Amino acid sequence: MVIKNAFYAQSGGVTAVINASACAVIETARAHPDRIGNVLAGRDGIIGALTEDLIDTSLESAADIARLRHTPGGAFGSCRYKLKSLEQSRREFERLIEVFRAHHIGYFFYNGGGDSADTCLKVSQLSAALGFPLQAIHIPKTVDNDLPLTDTCPGFGSVAKYVATSMREAGLDVASMARTSTKVFVFEVMGRHAGWITAACALAARNEGEAPHLLLLPEVLFDEARFLACVKECVDRYGYCAIAVSEGLRGPEGELMAGAGTTDAFGHAQLGGIGPQIAQLVKDRLGYKFHWAVADYLQRAARHIASKTDVEQAYAVGKAAVDMALAGKNAVMPAIRRLADYPYRWDIVEAPLDQVANVEHKMPAEFITADGFGITEAARRYLAPLIAGEDTPPFRDGLPDYVSLQNVSVARKLESFSI
Amino acid sequence: MVIKNAFYAQSGGVTAVINASACAVIETARAHPDRIGNVLAGRDGIIGALTEDLIDTSLESAADIARLRHTPGGAFGSCRYKLKSLEQSRREFERLIEVFRAHHIGYFFYNGGGDSADTCLKVSQLSAALGFPLQAIHIPKTVDNDLPLTDTCPGFGSVAKYVATSMREAGLDVASMARTSTKVFVFEVMGRHAGWITAACALAARNEGEAPHLLLLPEVLFDEARFLACVKECVDRYGYCAIAVSEGLRGPEGELMAGAGTTDAFGHAQLGGIGPQIAQLVKDRLGYKFHWAVADYLQRAARHIASKTDVEQAYAVGKAAVDMALAGKNAVMPAIRRLADYPYRWDIVEAPLDQVANVEHKMPAEFITADGFGITEAARRYLAPLIAGEDTPPFRDGLPDYVSLQNVSVARKLESFSI
Repeated sequence: MVIKNAFYAQSGGVTAVINASACAVIETARAHPDRIGNVLAGRDGIIGALTEDLIDTSLESAADIARLRHTPGGAFGSCRYKLKSLEQSRREFERLIEVFRAHHIGYFFYNGGGDSADTCLKVSQLSAALGFPLQAIHIPKTVDNDLPLTDTCPGFGSVAKYVATSMREAGLDVASMARTSTKVFVFEVMGRHAGWITAACALAARNEGEAPHLLLLPEVLFDEARFLACVKECVDRYGYCAIAVSEGLRGPEGELMAGAGTTDAFGHAQLGGIGPQIAQLVKDRLGYKFHWAVADYLQRAARHIASKTDVEQAYAVGKAAVDMALAGKNAVMPAIRRLADYPYRWDIVEAPLDQVANVEHKMPAEFITADGFGITEAARRYLAPLIAGEDTPPFRDGLPDYVSLQNVSVARKLESFSI
Repeated sequence: MVIKNAFYAQSGGVTAVINASACAVIETARAHPDRIGNVLAGRDGIIGALTEDLIDTSLESAADIARLRHTPGGAFGSCRYKLKSLEQSRREFERLIEVFRAHHIGYFFYNGGGDSADTCLKVSQLSAALGFPLQAIHIPKTVDNDLPLTDTCPGFGSVAKYVATSMREAGLDVASMARTSTKVFVFEVMGRHAGWITAACALAARNEGEAPHLLLLPEVLFDEARFLACVKECVDRYGYCAIAVSEGLRGPEGELMAGAGTTDAFGHAQLGGIGPQIAQLVKDRLGYKFHWAVADYLQRAARHIASKTDVEQAYAVGKAAVDMALAGKNAVMPAIRRLADYPYRWDIVEAPLDQVANVEHKMPAEFITADGFGITEAARRYLAPLIAGEDTPPFRDGLPDYVSLQNVSVARKLESFSI
């Protein structure tokens, strides 16, 4: 058999489990030395390919590669660098092929969300057009949970577990103190376009009256009067009100409500995101003492409370990607197929990349309650298995013991390339 | 022996482990049925004593009481209700004694910080003055870690573990993406007066260049120019800069910098705390893309990543409180005494309440580096053992399984009392 090298890159926002996919790619590749020579990883994602900055993963020990499975963040670096159409970004696409050719790369594994699925598809198309044999496999990853054709996206389940745990814990805190202290707690979570993460907060409540009491989803335009009425009713009934709000909440006209980084009509910098804004609104209109939390990167980096299901799926799609490549596949993505809800059973199937790229999987309308402030039983049935199981990392000196790789680059063979 | 009831109340901000102290009080009391009848808990803290709303803990099963050990928040409710001097709050103090008398209470266990140590001492003094025999024992609890005469305060070690873990995880995330995305990350943590929690974030870094790179402690007045220079140097050197900031950061004149809940000179509500303010400052002056997180209640409720040491100490002070009461002690607090750093060894000793009340234990100057932006080896030596060990709660359906007690009140015997 011909031995070729593989290229692996991480793309876009990193997650608590993207390195589990990297671990699977490298471990599976190493198990096939007759087919795959070395796995070269792009330093800072696709930029590493463009600049011919390729990390030699063969220098990392098997033990350190194994530790990737429990290490959050992007072990080789990731980037937000969007390749446009083949016409607009032809120079970059051709450079990729040039670098792959120079380093005997026959397998392209791209680990990301919707944009990178699109890039992966185009690399596959261009390599065919240029007569350069390359198998391009996309490995799904996004906390946004918005890829089509897959039951869920690796990374999401762990964020879901983190936000639901945090909401349950903070809810107990607020409930304890509500008589004389904070009555309204607002928890801002990620999700610019889809409310999957906000919806997952609802898993915290098992019984009537438990936090969270209200969800503010990006799918439901914000109705201030109706929201304030619900907050008041909740405080009257339970003594407090816990709210989960999506960073992507939209106002009555569909406009993004978060003011981070912008200025108001008077030119004053508006600090903070939608969480503090909603808390302040409640204070101004209803007078309740409030607190708010913004989890930001904490939520997508929280490997210490990762979902075991999510970790297993992240590893499985990485392994399946290499298996698919070895089976001669091209322009596909390993997707997760749900076979049963309880107990959750799933397997990995093949999704054609042209049906994945640029298709956004939104939260179905039937997952949102009629009042717009909660999720339905159907949503719970979908979400519950995704947070199941714990996969606690090893701890050292009281803290999770994460690996830092050496990340040594292979020697360059080409002229430099400006990005 | 005479059998008397015990009264237990939680005071002030709750923690991830205050219920472990409650668990210890009840379990230890139940082991001495010849001396202690029932443990009555104040609903919403001392307010429950004033209003004669006393929870009958004898109705809770041994299994549920045991589950308190791993449940965050305040299981019986807590409050911020400050009793002033014996003169100013005489009506309230006398009411307490009246309620204790009516319910045959001979033991008063008050679980809180500095203010409640003061209240506990006064209750002891007044009971003596009124000829009502009462043993008042204070059980230490505060995430602020500011009680004197004890090596640490139960609740702090778990917050320290949470913030250090979160900082390590978010730091890996930011480092992965810094080339094309966020270069400055600001993590706001609790600590109005003392920088203990901010200092604990520094435990996240094991090696040169790891997050956090800068601490903004309340003990060090904020010097904008020096801070910005350090941020720039850090980004130049490491590619990114991770900052932990205390909510209590003070400006050059010693003024609190956080603007939460206030309005600016133009009457506009200022949203957000000091975290977003610092992030915005960096953006305005240095132009770096930023992100920020505010952990708020998440940090003090994060029982899922509690420090085993902290849980053990919280339980130990609760148990010791009952043991001290049974030994005839009064107006004392079980305090933690450090016997050795590595391995950490500690025991429980008796601290007289008149030396605890109203004394604030600040972070020693020798714990802060000369530049004011970090902690010294002495600080690490002090902090490291406090986050050691994991005490993971049981999980059910993917989330920590916390207990909710029935919390049934005993029948009232007295006239109502307005607070």
